Amino acid sequence: MIKPGIPKGTRDFGPVVVRKRNYIFQTIRETFELFGFQPLETPAMENLSTLTGKYGEEGDKLMFKVLNNGEIYPAAHEAKDNKALVAAITEKALRYDLTIPFARYVVMNQHELALPFKRYQMQPVWRADKPQKGRYREFYQCDADVVGSNSLLNEVELLLIYDTVFTKLGLKGYELRINNRKILAGLAEVIGKPELLTDITISIDKLDKIGAAGVRKELEERGLASEDINTIERFLAIDGSSTEKLSQLKELLQSSATALKGIEELSFVINAGYADFNTTPIIDVTLARGLNYYTGLIVEVKAPATVKMGSIGGGGRYDDLTGLFGLPGISGVGISFGVDRIYDVLEELQLFPQTAQQSTKVLFLNLGEDSARKAFDYMMQLRKNGVAAELFHENAKMDKQMKYADKRGIPYVIILGESELQENTLSIKNLVNRQQEKIEAAALLQFTF
Amino acid sequence: MIKPGIPKGTRDFGPVVVRKRNYIFQTIRETFELFGFQPLETPAMENLSTLTGKYGEEGDKLMFKVLNNGEIYPAAHEAKDNKALVAAITEKALRYDLTIPFARYVVMNQHELALPFKRYQMQPVWRADKPQKGRYREFYQCDADVVGSNSLLNEVELLLIYDTVFTKLGLKGYELRINNRKILAGLAEVIGKPELLTDITISIDKLDKIGAAGVRKELEERGLASEDINTIERFLAIDGSSTEKLSQLKELLQSSATALKGIEELSFVINAGYADFNTTPIIDVTLARGLNYYTGLIVEVKAPATVKMGSIGGGGRYDDLTGLFGLPGISGVGISFGVDRIYDVLEELQLFPQTAQQSTKVLFLNLGEDSARKAFDYMMQLRKNGVAAELFHENAKMDKQMKYADKRGIPYVIILGESELQENTLSIKNLVNRQQEKIEAAALLQFTF
Repeated sequence: MIKPGIPKGTRDFGPVVVRKRNYIFQTIRETFELFGFQPLETPAMENLSTLTGKYGEEGDKLMFKVLNNGEIYPAAHEAKDNKALVAAITEKALRYDLTIPFARYVVMNQHELALPFKRYQMQPVWRADKPQKGRYREFYQCDADVVGSNSLLNEVELLLIYDTVFTKLGLKGYELRINNRKILAGLAEVIGKPELLTDITISIDKLDKIGAAGVRKELEERGLASEDINTIERFLAIDGSSTEKLSQLKELLQSSATALKGIEELSFVINAGYADFNTTPIIDVTLARGLNYYTGLIVEVKAPATVKMGSIGGGGRYDDLTGLFGLPGISGVGISFGVDRIYDVLEELQLFPQTAQQSTKVLFLNLGEDSARKAFDYMMQLRKNGVAAELFHENAKMDKQMKYADKRGIPYVIILGESELQENTLSIKNLVNRQQEKIEAAALLQFTF
Repeated sequence: MIKPGIPKGTRDFGPVVVRKRNYIFQTIRETFELFGFQPLETPAMENLSTLTGKYGEEGDKLMFKVLNNGEIYPAAHEAKDNKALVAAITEKALRYDLTIPFARYVVMNQHELALPFKRYQMQPVWRADKPQKGRYREFYQCDADVVGSNSLLNEVELLLIYDTVFTKLGLKGYELRINNRKILAGLAEVIGKPELLTDITISIDKLDKIGAAGVRKELEERGLASEDINTIERFLAIDGSSTEKLSQLKELLQSSATALKGIEELSFVINAGYADFNTTPIIDVTLARGLNYYTGLIVEVKAPATVKMGSIGGGGRYDDLTGLFGLPGISGVGISFGVDRIYDVLEELQLFPQTAQQSTKVLFLNLGEDSARKAFDYMMQLRKNGVAAELFHENAKMDKQMKYADKRGIPYVIILGESELQENTLSIKNLVNRQQEKIEAAALLQFTF
């Protein structure tokens, strides 16, 4: 008999963890709903034709492909190489993210949907990445996107969703960093090297890690002239309040219409007065993220510096979300919550409320048939009143039953011994402060557990 | 460009359906928690060594296997037949049910778990069945099981969970049918053909479909003697109240100790007085279900006869759940909810409450920048008060904005025109009864949406 295990990079979630995760999901879901977003669920398996080529070569490699059912030997036998073999024996793969299935859904349902369509989706995705600390092969994504609207009100709304969720979760000291892809594109235009946009942003994205000198060195290696690098350094030196940053950007990049458009968009989001943020968004001109996606806003949520967790969310605007599936010209903007990291952050900062950790409130001890019958009645009354309650399954030694309550973290034990049965009372023991009191049976539903 | 689609037998769930499904899941989850059951989630992929051979040959065939990542060509190339090929290129498969992963989890965590362990699990499973009406390749299972206790209190509790959930869902006229495997085994003993237990139960299980004459014919074909069939017919003729059925069973099967044990167990569940059912369980001696699993109680929930949906739930007791993974002697008892069918039943009987279908309550019309800014403030106030609200994303024609509200089923529209802005009022239009009223802006949070 082999010892049972689970595939590497996957996890079982036991009761305590599921409850805490559900607290996070529930907080996010509630907020999505308050903001008028609607739930969508797509299948775990998608056709390979839907997924292939959408996530780059790396993505095609890391996708979990599902073997065709039935006889595969003949088809496999004829294949001349790995690629042909895989193509011959698979036609489905596991969901790799939530964005491509969403785009596919929008295209398939374009005639029924009321646009703009604001959807949220919270489902697992699978990637054959090398498992390591904080990186799993099965993990939940938790996305909200709007398609079919170019209005910057959506950007404001999505930032407010972050603000609302993290406020509800009690998280303080996190940062909501924003940028605009058009500003980065404008910078490349201003130094006359639009074709080097990707190189430039990859380098400046590393400012935090390698410092200004490191960035300079990298840019030199990527073939940028010294005066271009000077411009980039002036760009990186932009500082001050949001208003100051915006005006410095305007001055430095005034020759690029693209940049000015980006600055205007950022300015709207920051200054619209549409919204009071608990945590004001910070302009971060180095913020790039998966640059090739984004065409407007770029946003990233950084965990409080004290927990060293990095990004706990991000998103942005991407034009032409559905063009891949034959429906061009539909713009999208969305955000994502990194639930696994948020979990770790809340755990480290001890921000999970008691209610997120609670299960059964009351254990009735089983002291034999007469007592158990009576206890069962009381238990059903409590349950009808919304109090989670259990009766120990057998008339075991008191000690064993108390141990069960302890191990399960049940805070109250109710005892219906002979005297209680005679007096029509109940003894309630609080296992937290170890105090015991006797109440009239009729007062049970008024008791605060 | 190929038209995008999804794998056959799978489904997208749009907003309206997700909300209704969540209403069902939430009702079940709430009840599980009230009864002291704890949530568990296991990975979508399990090792093949965990799953293979656990669901019979049919199951091994219908499992969705996941292709190993990386180069598979060399290993595949050497394989001499289909079986060897599949073994060479796969080591994981998608979850096929929730019971085996649960057993695997219990064995892996046996030293940490407080026994009895009462867990519930609500996750999708995947089977490559031929898709047809009501049968999908991806569907949710929704199980509650207790392991590590032989107490019949668990049977009573699980039946009460069915009773509580279906009462909460407002379902009337369904049947909670129960039987005990030991009674069926006892019947086979009494006629001296214990080895024909499976044949006998397969035949009598069809009583509803083929009638008494049909069953007789089948039993003859299966080689049973005429007098044995007479005994079986007396068994099938058992009728009356539960008490009457139990006493007839006792008389007919008195020579089998196994049967008497089963009758005693059934009697406990029916008569324990532990529980007041809204829908009293009915003894159905023909009920067998996946007989090979069960060793004690067998239960099945039948949808109200009017909807012709058949079974909407079932379960039973099975000994030695974890023996497959090297931990023998652990008994389990569990039930399952057929969520897809329950959905169809509630839909047909129009039992989904209005609240399960509600999304955004209020749409603020967008009438230009000044109005929109003000509207945004009011909207955020409503959201903070728990009212889901939206502001139309752009200053479009009134008609277009009203159509959006209609299509989304939003019941209220709020208008902040010039006069309202001047007067500090809001016009609220109820789209259901088409009535419009004007309120003081300060009274917004008191308005009942």
